[in-house]
Amino acid sequence: MTPHRAYWDEPKETRTRAAREDEVLALLQAQLHRVYDEVPFYREHYDAHGFHPDQVHTLEDFTRLVPVITKSMLRADQAANPPFGSYLGVLESKIARIHGSSGTTGAPTLYGISHRDWEHVADVMAQGFYTAGIRPDDKVQLSTVFGMFIGGWGSLLGCERIGATTFPIGAGETERQLELMYRVGSTVLICTPTYALHMLERARSLGYDTAASPLRLGIFIGEPGAAIPGTREVLEKGWGMTVRDLATTSEMTPFATNAECQEGRGVHVLQDQVWTEIVDKADTHVGAPEGTSGGVVYTHLHRESQPMIRFASGDESHMTYEPCPCGRTYPRLPNGVYGRLDDMLIIRGANVYPSQVQRSLLTVPGTGVEFVIVLDRPDTMDRATVRVEYDPTLEPSDLDAFKRELTEAVQARLKNDTNISFAVEVLKPETLERSMSKAKRVDDRRPAMVAR
Amino acid sequence: MTPHRAYWDEPKETRTRAAREDEVLALLQAQLHRVYDEVPFYREHYDAHGFHPDQVHTLEDFTRLVPVITKSMLRADQAANPPFGSYLGVLESKIARIHGSSGTTGAPTLYGISHRDWEHVADVMAQGFYTAGIRPDDKVQLSTVFGMFIGGWGSLLGCERIGATTFPIGAGETERQLELMYRVGSTVLICTPTYALHMLERARSLGYDTAASPLRLGIFIGEPGAAIPGTREVLEKGWGMTVRDLATTSEMTPFATNAECQEGRGVHVLQDQVWTEIVDKADTHVGAPEGTSGGVVYTHLHRESQPMIRFASGDESHMTYEPCPCGRTYPRLPNGVYGRLDDMLIIRGANVYPSQVQRSLLTVPGTGVEFVIVLDRPDTMDRATVRVEYDPTLEPSDLDAFKRELTEAVQARLKNDTNISFAVEVLKPETLERSMSKAKRVDDRRPAMVAR
Repeated sequence: MTPHRAYWDEPKETRTRAAREDEVLALLQAQLHRVYDEVPFYREHYDAHGFHPDQVHTLEDFTRLVPVITKSMLRADQAANPPFGSYLGVLESKIARIHGSSGTTGAPTLYGISHRDWEHVADVMAQGFYTAGIRPDDKVQLSTVFGMFIGGWGSLLGCERIGATTFPIGAGETERQLELMYRVGSTVLICTPTYALHMLERARSLGYDTAASPLRLGIFIGEPGAAIPGTREVLEKGWGMTVRDLATTSEMTPFATNAECQEGRGVHVLQDQVWTEIVDKADTHVGAPEGTSGGVVYTHLHRESQPMIRFASGDESHMTYEPCPCGRTYPRLPNGVYGRLDDMLIIRGANVYPSQVQRSLLTVPGTGVEFVIVLDRPDTMDRATVRVEYDPTLEPSDLDAFKRELTEAVQARLKNDTNISFAVEVLKPETLERSMSKAKRVDDRRPAMVAR
Repeated sequence: MTPHRAYWDEPKETRTRAAREDEVLALLQAQLHRVYDEVPFYREHYDAHGFHPDQVHTLEDFTRLVPVITKSMLRADQAANPPFGSYLGVLESKIARIHGSSGTTGAPTLYGISHRDWEHVADVMAQGFYTAGIRPDDKVQLSTVFGMFIGGWGSLLGCERIGATTFPIGAGETERQLELMYRVGSTVLICTPTYALHMLERARSLGYDTAASPLRLGIFIGEPGAAIPGTREVLEKGWGMTVRDLATTSEMTPFATNAECQEGRGVHVLQDQVWTEIVDKADTHVGAPEGTSGGVVYTHLHRESQPMIRFASGDESHMTYEPCPCGRTYPRLPNGVYGRLDDMLIIRGANVYPSQVQRSLLTVPGTGVEFVIVLDRPDTMDRATVRVEYDPTLEPSDLDAFKRELTEAVQARLKNDTNISFAVEVLKPETLERSMSKAKRVDDRRPAMVAR
């Protein structure tokens, strides 16, 4: 590797918080005025809440006064104003790219991104992926779906802007992926953590020496897995590479504004691109104190097309301004985005995230990486069952005894970590269905609750 | 639609043949010297054939003296010099993009395209797609696979360079594709003709008024279908759009150097990007006379990475310099590339292309668009059976009689057009397997011949 500079944009990345926030405030004020004057969706929303952009004189005002928007508002607005909603913000003829949301929680919404924005997206994606460690002499294998989902496309754009060699092979055809990874000598892998785990299992079963793979770095998008210590460890040891977490949510493209640096202390928040607030879970107009967990609210500072202004993402996290040895002055989300509020399960009245269950499972020796939480209600009570495969590298001599012991260990760990009594089923490796993209970790078979 | 200029690059597209060929000769001479001096694959090949670049003083010399290269030579060279072969032509660190061949006729070969070339590819792809009719105010739905196969990627690059709105949704999930095509209002569809036919069938079965679709133009890549009159007619009437044929072969990226203009008189050959020769089928050093069918031999004039110099593609075509009313002075392949030499079937000693069979079938009223040719050898003789679906819009009152009559009509037509007696089976619509990309039109079950 030839030496490369440490930062993508040193003056910007290392300036003082005060200098950055002066710029952020000016950009926020300009955005508010623009969307109020030119974007019907915001004008109506703000008028309905009695808010006017002139009221914002400080960053605190911004949090205190600007009403948030939500995914369901965007969906309703697109239904009323097809195809891009009354929040498009530019003429349709200015759109460079059309993509869409995954539609996992309802009908997909359409993204329309202008030529000007798409050009800017490339710069920001480059900064994010450079922060995560990609350099011009890397060969980057992008094993992500290229279609509606924007994750792979944005990643590709950033890697191209860095000047790396890109190998956008897409997801699927895992056996061929592996053959080509070794043949090409890919140094970086970008995909979902779920797919990286699947590739790892498959490679091992095909006899590859995965710890001696050509990969030096894995950057994972689309799911929180890379920030989960157990998953990270499995991937780092398995592939013999460093793992870094990156990305926010697709509405917030350029989504690489959460990017982990070489220190591996959580994701830096590129606050001069997307202004990211952590707010009280109960009140979006109250900032959460530094270090306290809260809802994540995002604002585009530069997008002209479909700008998101105080988008309440449903993500949960906490933030710190503690200095990072890398020299970047951006704050960090030390544990990344560790759960979506709408992914949270309520089991017999208790709250638990699938990612918490995953973290617990991975600390129990003998478990594999694949699991699913099955929820049902055989009588009046919720029943929660964790179905987990055992480690495929093990060949237990007494399978029944092994399964019994592992079942007990997993139950004890889950009870300890979540305070919920789970039923546990230990399964043979390769029993559960694999995913090429986001894993389905929850199978909720409970009858729908009657709305109150 | 706002008015747009008629040409992408008017001076280049309308200059005299003599002026263009002066430039072509100079570029060919420079390419030959460069590959001889810098690219081991070519140096060895030319030395082995006693050829030296100094021998080329005219375009005729180029045909007469420069030895061709073939796909199997590239495959062998990559096996000996992994991963990109000794014909890479640039340092690996200069590669922007890695893609690969489809591997339909053997192990896939890897494509490595340099940053400089990739930038140039965008310009040429833009010229090709502009010729085929895409304008900046189009919304282009790219229903092509985005992975190893370069077809969709190159198309996307060209449409982006034109400044159109691009919607790279990928292939598959046909029902969602259709919903989004209508919702977005896509004006152009790019995919394989096979997939466009599949979408059409599916849309009709879902009750869409396809003739009133938002599409105004379909540009088809990856297969010769768009140049086959019957297929073109089905797609044009079915979708209520104009159909244009485009593309060469993926080794020749920028592959949009065969592009049909608004006149619809076959594809223009962008001779100042890829120098395209039609040669005698038996001797690659003899040019085929104008209008005579022969093998297609391609040469990159501008590529520095993996330049193809006299690549004998296995394609077959004929060329004309007859002026085109569009004003472009490029010659044309009036029927496009109408068959690959290695697709040619030999049935009881007679030659036939699957595309010929397709053309014949589509002229028989009552046939659908899906068919497959099954070849076997029950005793010592080849048996050729055409299995074809009938038109899904028909509801024959007497199905047996209808099938009997259609069988006879198809047999007579095929015998007339190909001089081969085919067995014919008429099938219900939706019986044969559908493809998302290239259709499999031949099922050859004959035992392999012993090599002589």
